[in-house]
Amino acid sequence: MNQALWLIIACGALSIVYGVWAIQSVMASDAGNERMREIAGAIQEGAQAYLTRQYTTIAIAGVVIFIIVALLLGLPVAVGFAVGAVLSGAAGFTGMLVSVRANVRTAQAASNSLAAGLSIAFRSGAVTGMLVAGLALLAVSVYFLVLTRYMGLEPSSRTVIDALVALGFGASLISIFARLGGGIFTKGADVGGDLVGKVEAGIPEDDPRNPATIADNVGDNVGDCAGMAADLFETYAVTVVATMVLASIYFSGAELLMPMMVYPLAIGAVCVITSIAGTFFVRLGASQSIMGALYKAVIATGILSLIGLWPVTALIVGMDTPLTAGEASFTGWSLYLCGIVGLAVTALIIVITEYYTGTNFRPVRSVASASITGHGTNVIQGLAISLEATALPALVIIAGIVVANGLAGLFGIAIAVTTMLALAGLVVALDAFGPVTDNAGGIAEMADLPEDVRNTTDALDAVGNTTKAVTKGYAIGSAGLGALVLFAAYTEDLKFFTANAEAFPYFADVGEVTFALSNPYVVVGLFLGGLLPFLFGGIAMTAVGRAGGKIVEEVRRQFKEKPGIMEGKERPDYTRAVDLLTRAAIKEMIVPSMLPVLSPIVVYFVVDLIAGKNAAFSTVGAMLLGVIVTGLFVAISMTAGGGAWDNAKKYIEDGNYGGKGSEAHKAAVTGDTVGDPYKDTAGPAVNPMIKITNIVALLLLAVLAHNSM
Amino acid sequence: MNQALWLIIACGALSIVYGVWAIQSVMASDAGNERMREIAGAIQEGAQAYLTRQYTTIAIAGVVIFIIVALLLGLPVAVGFAVGAVLSGAAGFTGMLVSVRANVRTAQAASNSLAAGLSIAFRSGAVTGMLVAGLALLAVSVYFLVLTRYMGLEPSSRTVIDALVALGFGASLISIFARLGGGIFTKGADVGGDLVGKVEAGIPEDDPRNPATIADNVGDNVGDCAGMAADLFETYAVTVVATMVLASIYFSGAELLMPMMVYPLAIGAVCVITSIAGTFFVRLGASQSIMGALYKAVIATGILSLIGLWPVTALIVGMDTPLTAGEASFTGWSLYLCGIVGLAVTALIIVITEYYTGTNFRPVRSVASASITGHGTNVIQGLAISLEATALPALVIIAGIVVANGLAGLFGIAIAVTTMLALAGLVVALDAFGPVTDNAGGIAEMADLPEDVRNTTDALDAVGNTTKAVTKGYAIGSAGLGALVLFAAYTEDLKFFTANAEAFPYFADVGEVTFALSNPYVVVGLFLGGLLPFLFGGIAMTAVGRAGGKIVEEVRRQFKEKPGIMEGKERPDYTRAVDLLTRAAIKEMIVPSMLPVLSPIVVYFVVDLIAGKNAAFSTVGAMLLGVIVTGLFVAISMTAGGGAWDNAKKYIEDGNYGGKGSEAHKAAVTGDTVGDPYKDTAGPAVNPMIKITNIVALLLLAVLAHNSM
Repeated sequence: MNQALWLIIACGALSIVYGVWAIQSVMASDAGNERMREIAGAIQEGAQAYLTRQYTTIAIAGVVIFIIVALLLGLPVAVGFAVGAVLSGAAGFTGMLVSVRANVRTAQAASNSLAAGLSIAFRSGAVTGMLVAGLALLAVSVYFLVLTRYMGLEPSSRTVIDALVALGFGASLISIFARLGGGIFTKGADVGGDLVGKVEAGIPEDDPRNPATIADNVGDNVGDCAGMAADLFETYAVTVVATMVLASIYFSGAELLMPMMVYPLAIGAVCVITSIAGTFFVRLGASQSIMGALYKAVIATGILSLIGLWPVTALIVGMDTPLTAGEASFTGWSLYLCGIVGLAVTALIIVITEYYTGTNFRPVRSVASASITGHGTNVIQGLAISLEATALPALVIIAGIVVANGLAGLFGIAIAVTTMLALAGLVVALDAFGPVTDNAGGIAEMADLPEDVRNTTDALDAVGNTTKAVTKGYAIGSAGLGALVLFAAYTEDLKFFTANAEAFPYFADVGEVTFALSNPYVVVGLFLGGLLPFLFGGIAMTAVGRAGGKIVEEVRRQFKEKPGIMEGKERPDYTRAVDLLTRAAIKEMIVPSMLPVLSPIVVYFVVDLIAGKNAAFSTVGAMLLGVIVTGLFVAISMTAGGGAWDNAKKYIEDGNYGGKGSEAHKAAVTGDTVGDPYKDTAGPAVNPMIKITNIVALLLLAVLAHNSM
Repeated sequence: MNQALWLIIACGALSIVYGVWAIQSVMASDAGNERMREIAGAIQEGAQAYLTRQYTTIAIAGVVIFIIVALLLGLPVAVGFAVGAVLSGAAGFTGMLVSVRANVRTAQAASNSLAAGLSIAFRSGAVTGMLVAGLALLAVSVYFLVLTRYMGLEPSSRTVIDALVALGFGASLISIFARLGGGIFTKGADVGGDLVGKVEAGIPEDDPRNPATIADNVGDNVGDCAGMAADLFETYAVTVVATMVLASIYFSGAELLMPMMVYPLAIGAVCVITSIAGTFFVRLGASQSIMGALYKAVIATGILSLIGLWPVTALIVGMDTPLTAGEASFTGWSLYLCGIVGLAVTALIIVITEYYTGTNFRPVRSVASASITGHGTNVIQGLAISLEATALPALVIIAGIVVANGLAGLFGIAIAVTTMLALAGLVVALDAFGPVTDNAGGIAEMADLPEDVRNTTDALDAVGNTTKAVTKGYAIGSAGLGALVLFAAYTEDLKFFTANAEAFPYFADVGEVTFALSNPYVVVGLFLGGLLPFLFGGIAMTAVGRAGGKIVEEVRRQFKEKPGIMEGKERPDYTRAVDLLTRAAIKEMIVPSMLPVLSPIVVYFVVDLIAGKNAAFSTVGAMLLGVIVTGLFVAISMTAGGGAWDNAKKYIEDGNYGGKGSEAHKAAVTGDTVGDPYKDTAGPAVNPMIKITNIVALLLLAVLAHNSM
């Protein structure tokens, strides 16, 4: 199995090689005229300044947590935390560095052709995608190798498990900060800039006279690129870790233990290669359909993965090897089929999300047509679509659970979700070109490039809205499917500790913990978990409103103090807007990020005080499922609804229902503004929030066990 | 115990007597000038026409279901269904009849003083309130008496239990139709009328030139009065029935069986009296605070109930009687304390809802202040508040569960929620004056009464918005607390059938059904249940948008064909708008109403096909909790958010942030429009939807058992 691990690490390394190659290829292309480079420079500077500050703040929190983890659970576990955190940050930061350089090159290329623009934008997105998947795979596999081979620990020992879980925690913590901080920054700029620019001053989006316009472009990079990368990094890492933990529990002591723990990593490795291969299939057909070009990559990657998973399963597990995990009996063949379930769920979520957020289908068009009768009906229809859009993805996830469970029980579900996440490289690549084209459009506008450049980038951007929604639906969908896996890790850990109470005396008086719905504390836990996404969403929305309000005031002040700005004679002070948002976003991200970290701990100790340890463990366990039961729907509704609003505006701007400047367009702008914090701040942050709640609960168990020895 | 039952029936009858007296007292007051009476006549006619048509449609569905129930479960059960359905309809219809006569009298009285207006409006609301509580109490207690005494059935026999459950089902079915149909009617009129009137034609709300204005006033009566009455009737009936069913299970065969089944009815009886007494405490103080006047009634009723529950518990249960229900051991004293928990939960929900929807507090003011920067920020802030507003009520419900469970286990929770609902008479009275004053304002506007009459009715209406949100929060809160009770009824029934499989052969091969969260089918059930409120909400919102769109077209057509309308020379055709909405509302209410009825049945048989009976019962059981876990938050967020938007508009109209006609006001109107279907259609209909899902599941068990004998 050591050879297999080295091969896996080589696949991870390959993604870095691909990244370096793709970066060079992007950088080699024409960076446009001086004005364009100047604008891009301002965006680069702002993005770098913000991210440096954000990661510095997170680093301070991280060091504190590192010390706490080291004291409570030992150094190897704390190092796991650091590995997850640092590599997650690295993936986001590098992605952003490429993205802020690709934007101007995309704008330049788009003046040649749609295909050229798509090519550069997509390649830049692919850098982020492959780094996310590759670094996450490397983080887990290298540290696992170090722990088991060089430190000589048993693969199923508590230290290895705790260290892996802590790695996931590190990634999750970065992710929630990055998602929220980036989300508040980008949507504060967007909402505030639009309000004061489009609505008050009557100047178009991305007009260089608007002092918030650079901040808006910075936001695309720190929110939609770096924030998203951190989110998917953690989703990937946590899923793989949870599957490995489950394998360590189910196959502890068995000969197959090591292969079963390596298997999820191997799935990740093969899919890194198929994803890289898939990126070369992105090609505009005769129809010039951008979504069609992207679908080619998805289909190619899917088919290649389907083929590639076969030998991997045969070599590592063996197709006919009889396996037993918990109450389920199955073979390697069943696990291969579970992998296919994961691929199918991914494909269906992509198709469903395209339906709900694409401009060609009923939902977006119904929002656009509701704009004719005004702001109110636009928002009502958008909310209706956002609520409705949850049903089909939920049914797909439910079907995935039922089928995978039928094939190989809980472990089958874990393999399905691991395979789903193994495609993260490609999915992120599909998404990360969005902010690049959005920026390219902004640069085209500010640098006064010809109208058709903007049209090209707008077409790319509309597809970007859909793929952004896809990524979010995919991330939260995997969380839905993975909920059972994380919950199983919690219950199995708990079982282990209570069964070995002589070693872990804290658990001596716990007794058997039940998670039956007839236990009132289970219902209490479901409600407590259920309220987190709502409260969290409320706080995040308020934060965006507040940050947007500050931008409105700042822009108004600049317009008042420098009347030359509106006449185009004076240059607005872009930096101030960026600085102001930086401070606001960093400040606003702290409280909501702490909510999921502290909730399981507070709930545990409060319930323990009232009703004892047994009830407290039941409550926290049920809370882990409660947070996903509401979180899944809240997140999907917000991200799909926001995408629909955005594209309904784009649909009208394409000349429908009166086009730009009509009353319908104004109503659609309102819907887009409402959708902004929905889809880019509150909605996507729900996914890391769910994960953190789960992982903190696992760590809480570890801490209680460790410190009672 | 028969004496006790007769006393309970007498208390129920007393509420009818109160109703008759209050009706006479309302009717005796001045009905205003001829123009006012003419307008009121049109509203009466429209409301009566709509309700007749709605109830005719429901009656057709009802007769079909009656026959199905009779065939599947026998005549006594079908009669239970009919009793629930007919009395629920009667409460709503009578309430509406009074309401459409009190509106014009309130307008007339408001021209004298605020106190006089409040007095008539409140008394008319109290009629609806007392009829709801009284008729629900009578329905359950009389039919229970008939079944046990005159038909000689054992109180814990299957027929009695099934008949009581069917009574709840009848009430629920009426309720969901009435909530949805009424909600679509009222908000279709409101949204459509506002859009075309306020926004397009630039005429004020309730302007007689707007052809939708009578329909809008009709809507208040059929939606907020009749619909709400049916909703609370079912909440009351289902809660009492579920508690009685639980008593019959826990105390089956015990000497205390009959007293324990009568005890919930006795709680209802004493609280009818305290509620009636409470209505006499509504009095404007020197501060002229309307909310203050209503609080006096709440406090008086609360204290009187606190006192009154003591002798009732002592006489029926005995304070020191040792009791055992399931695993919990307690005394009558514990049950009394559970009653206090119910009162406390009610009080806290009222206070929290007032905080989130009252014009004096941060939330509404933050929405109002966000209106300054435009439509988008108003909606964002409203959504943020709506999400945030779920946290405190959920915590109160959680605390209620924990405390009541600690006192007397599941049966304690049932008693707490029964006591909570026992106050329905007063809570409905607080709410039902809202539509009356809303109508009074409309009549004042249309009949050209002096400005200060409108100001008086507006002040009453603003408080009405808060009390409306209170009632909805209270209904859904009780559903949250009652979820465990309904779920327990399901599991205990299931246990009973599987344990007696020789009598019920269908259950012979089921085995032990588990509801542990580690069972994948339980998670599947939670997700399936969780998606219902979202899908349902989406459909309901779309329906309102569609109905509103039709009104916009109709009004535009009338303005075009009769240019004299806008000049005040020609009379608009009010009836056509009412007819059009009637057809639209009846048509649109069918599909969403069937969703919760069919879901448990379809899910059961589909899962049975895939994975067998055991998995199917687990899935359906978990679904019952899933629907409440998301439904609680969806409903509270919608009703509180909608209330906040509405009152933010009112706050601006009071002269803040530029007052009427300002840009902030326009943004606030948008928020109000968005909040309309949120708070008056989708949100409140979630409560009956949850109940129906639960009750259909119980009936499904009964049918499977009955027809396998």
